[in-house]
Amino acid sequence: MIKMIAFDADDTLWENEVLYIKIQEQFVDILSPYGNKEEIFDHLLETETKNVPLYGYGIKSFGLSLIETAITTSKQQLPSAKIAEILDMIRYMLTYKLAVYEGVEETLQHLSKQYPLLMITKGDLLDQDLKVERSGLRKYFKGIEIVATKEESTYQEIMQRYQVAPQHFMMVGNSLRSDVLPVIALGGTGVYYENSVSWAHEHEIDPAHQVLTYQSIHHLTEVVALVETLNNQS
Amino acid sequence: MIKMIAFDADDTLWENEVLYIKIQEQFVDILSPYGNKEEIFDHLLETETKNVPLYGYGIKSFGLSLIETAITTSKQQLPSAKIAEILDMIRYMLTYKLAVYEGVEETLQHLSKQYPLLMITKGDLLDQDLKVERSGLRKYFKGIEIVATKEESTYQEIMQRYQVAPQHFMMVGNSLRSDVLPVIALGGTGVYYENSVSWAHEHEIDPAHQVLTYQSIHHLTEVVALVETLNNQS
Repeated sequence: MIKMIAFDADDTLWENEVLYIKIQEQFVDILSPYGNKEEIFDHLLETETKNVPLYGYGIKSFGLSLIETAITTSKQQLPSAKIAEILDMIRYMLTYKLAVYEGVEETLQHLSKQYPLLMITKGDLLDQDLKVERSGLRKYFKGIEIVATKEESTYQEIMQRYQVAPQHFMMVGNSLRSDVLPVIALGGTGVYYENSVSWAHEHEIDPAHQVLTYQSIHHLTEVVALVETLNNQS
Repeated sequence: MIKMIAFDADDTLWENEVLYIKIQEQFVDILSPYGNKEEIFDHLLETETKNVPLYGYGIKSFGLSLIETAITTSKQQLPSAKIAEILDMIRYMLTYKLAVYEGVEETLQHLSKQYPLLMITKGDLLDQDLKVERSGLRKYFKGIEIVATKEESTYQEIMQRYQVAPQHFMMVGNSLRSDVLPVIALGGTGVYYENSVSWAHEHEIDPAHQVLTYQSIHHLTEVVALVETLNNQS
């Protein structure tokens, strides 16, 4: 019996990854005098990975990694006017019009009449808060949880705080590793939203988890029918 | 009767502002070929203020404002090697050895045996989380609340979540505006820790609040006696 439904936000409720891809392309253009596309991409990924423990996730962290990569790739030859362009790109990422996926608002509106809904999103506190605001979806949620990591302990703490047992808790998201598997491991229901942008990180899944079964959807609107089916079975 | 005690963290439990002052001095040195100290300080403050709604508080936000100020103050003439130095300064801020004030650990240890303690700190989620970790003080707190703003509604939400009524809630901090006045306005007990670094922002207090009375201490260890006195009166 599902009594509470939680949703991931980035690339589950609204577009996110496409913006990063667009910005990375602009970044490669800026650095084109100093290296080829693959080298720049590799260097950026390396810098971002190195910085995660210190900077965390989010747009400002990404921005600082862009600047660092630009300086090192150009061997400190990049003019600061170009770094000013990178600062403009960061500002753009923080203010562009957020694209909520089709059908999301109707789905949340419908579900929120029957179930308390949570949003559980990883990242920078202010970045995510601004995105929730810009999305116009805040009103459908009982709680917005902005977390630094999405591990079993994260979900456990949230369930305890909202006083819901794992067997009554459903989490919907586009990352098997962050949204689905930890919830299943706790005895909850994990729903994998197979958004095309999710595939890149697929290989990161711990093979030990592969035996766990999860529900899978291709469009967020399917959550309504899924909850109904699950609750009729139990 | 006080039943729960909450503490601000930066400049209440540990040094924070002095680090910003040190970094700002290094920054002025880097920019000295392009302007005098006052101009650079003014320009930095202006840039930080402009960026707060978008970047929020925290080290990464401060870092991005440093880079922006450096580029504009130098009219895009600053070599990127100098921006690499600023990136190093940001990294230093995220990793330097945190200085917990004298007497803080003993005070928290003592109080935590009698009362549930909360830490309520404003800023970047990961920055603050890393500082809590580095402080070694996490074990004394029932909850760590990292918030984007410290307004009446923030405290109200926290009190509701921990199921404590305002008359049983005490908040200790070095900012009248953020730590003391909103809690008093809700009917709680606000304790102003008059740390010398707090004075700069004093003038920001809304005059409408000035009639409110608050407790005042000069050393954090005084909280123990204060709570005892208050609880013996009631």
